[in-house]
Amino acid sequence: MTADLEIICVGNELLIGKIQDTNAHYLSLQATRLGVNVKRITVIQDILEEIASTINDALARKPMFIITTGGLGPTFDDITLQGIAKALNRELEVNENAIEMIKQRHKELAKTRNIPAKFELTKPRLKMAMLPEKAEPIHNPVGSAPAVLIDLQETILFVLPGVPLEMEGIFQETVAPVLKQASGNNGFYETSLFVDSLMESVLSPLIDIVMNDNQGVYVKSHVKVDGKSKPHIEVHLTLVGQSGDESNERLQKAKRQLLALIEPTGLRIID
Amino acid sequence: MTADLEIICVGNELLIGKIQDTNAHYLSLQATRLGVNVKRITVIQDILEEIASTINDALARKPMFIITTGGLGPTFDDITLQGIAKALNRELEVNENAIEMIKQRHKELAKTRNIPAKFELTKPRLKMAMLPEKAEPIHNPVGSAPAVLIDLQETILFVLPGVPLEMEGIFQETVAPVLKQASGNNGFYETSLFVDSLMESVLSPLIDIVMNDNQGVYVKSHVKVDGKSKPHIEVHLTLVGQSGDESNERLQKAKRQLLALIEPTGLRIID
Repeated sequence: MTADLEIICVGNELLIGKIQDTNAHYLSLQATRLGVNVKRITVIQDILEEIASTINDALARKPMFIITTGGLGPTFDDITLQGIAKALNRELEVNENAIEMIKQRHKELAKTRNIPAKFELTKPRLKMAMLPEKAEPIHNPVGSAPAVLIDLQETILFVLPGVPLEMEGIFQETVAPVLKQASGNNGFYETSLFVDSLMESVLSPLIDIVMNDNQGVYVKSHVKVDGKSKPHIEVHLTLVGQSGDESNERLQKAKRQLLALIEPTGLRIID
Repeated sequence: MTADLEIICVGNELLIGKIQDTNAHYLSLQATRLGVNVKRITVIQDILEEIASTINDALARKPMFIITTGGLGPTFDDITLQGIAKALNRELEVNENAIEMIKQRHKELAKTRNIPAKFELTKPRLKMAMLPEKAEPIHNPVGSAPAVLIDLQETILFVLPGVPLEMEGIFQETVAPVLKQASGNNGFYETSLFVDSLMESVLSPLIDIVMNDNQGVYVKSHVKVDGKSKPHIEVHLTLVGQSGDESNERLQKAKRQLLALIEPTGLRIID
């Protein structure tokens, strides 16, 4: 079975175009390289009912993993955990391990940043330690708010902050090893070739042949008209398979076949 | 009633991290500036059932508009229109207006690009002209594949290509005027202030006060720790309101109140 993943990004700033989401792209790329199949990205507003219903919709599709980003901070609209608690019909409760983590991070941060050394359990800090029942806080090596893991048997839910450096730090430290183990020995293989033309309709039947003849290899053409380089088509070949030479050889074989099919058409391959 | 919008991006390349999606960000920003409320972005794979169920889920939420991007080209995995037809329980049929548009675009493109001048209605070209029943093709000022409009009474569905320059050209030419009209005389107003600190928990209660006192003004703090600039917080104030000075004055009033509340805390405002 392939390990699959849904990503849910929470934050109005992503939907008003204030911030270009980079978290979903980072997570997609990293998870794919770990051999995980990223099924869906959903970006939603900071609205309790939206978060709850989106989590429930995702759980109904039974992915092995869900990762959320955003909405873990101390401000009024950081309500991802409330939304998740609502979805799971669980209460939010003070998590002692989370308080310990926040205290510990405060001690570390007070050394390097201009904040008071004395730790007070203010209301906003307490808020960051309110987790759904039976959730586990995850160490945040960069910021203050702990991330959260909720094991729902069919699905493991990781709740990460939205600040990219924090999200990435937690992903690498805690999430990536879990994904890697779940995907088994799978790896992601890719190669491209570039065609000096926009005749995608000529390439299309050739791609069909290559995909038919090379089970597991996925071939997709991308028209590149960006005003920066000369208009051309990138043909991208990918394969998820067991790590090792054999997977790479299967991919190269498909590429050679495609090159041989393109030759008689007169389309020119560029580097 | 606020005009609202859901964006659905179709394409495996977005989910394997091969391509950083820029279309959703572009559309979010443009629609927001036209006074439209962007409710959700969903990114899905090129899988027929996924497209159909995602369209149906979105329609069930009854947004005024849905815009899809991607999957309109001639290759085997460009199946957005099939997915939409399946969702709507309509047949795909050859659309004569679409064929006329493709023929016309071919004539124009043959002048500037290295493609044969003679137009043949090849299978891939015919595919681009197969639209769901009662759909209208939309002129594509940049590429070959027409975009599509489907009027479903409660919701208008725009089906745009994934190549950013094509998507943007069609959006500006055809979609933006419709959104603008639907949003009435609304505009989007925004302003920011920057705090030289990471004490989001100190700001949080002040933001609550300002949002309470200034109906319609939305205030959100963003922690900026990116390794490029000194760590700081951006506080972003936004308002959707009638175009004109009055909306802007409401926003500036909220900003002045926030600045006055921040002053006694000792937090420093930076430019």
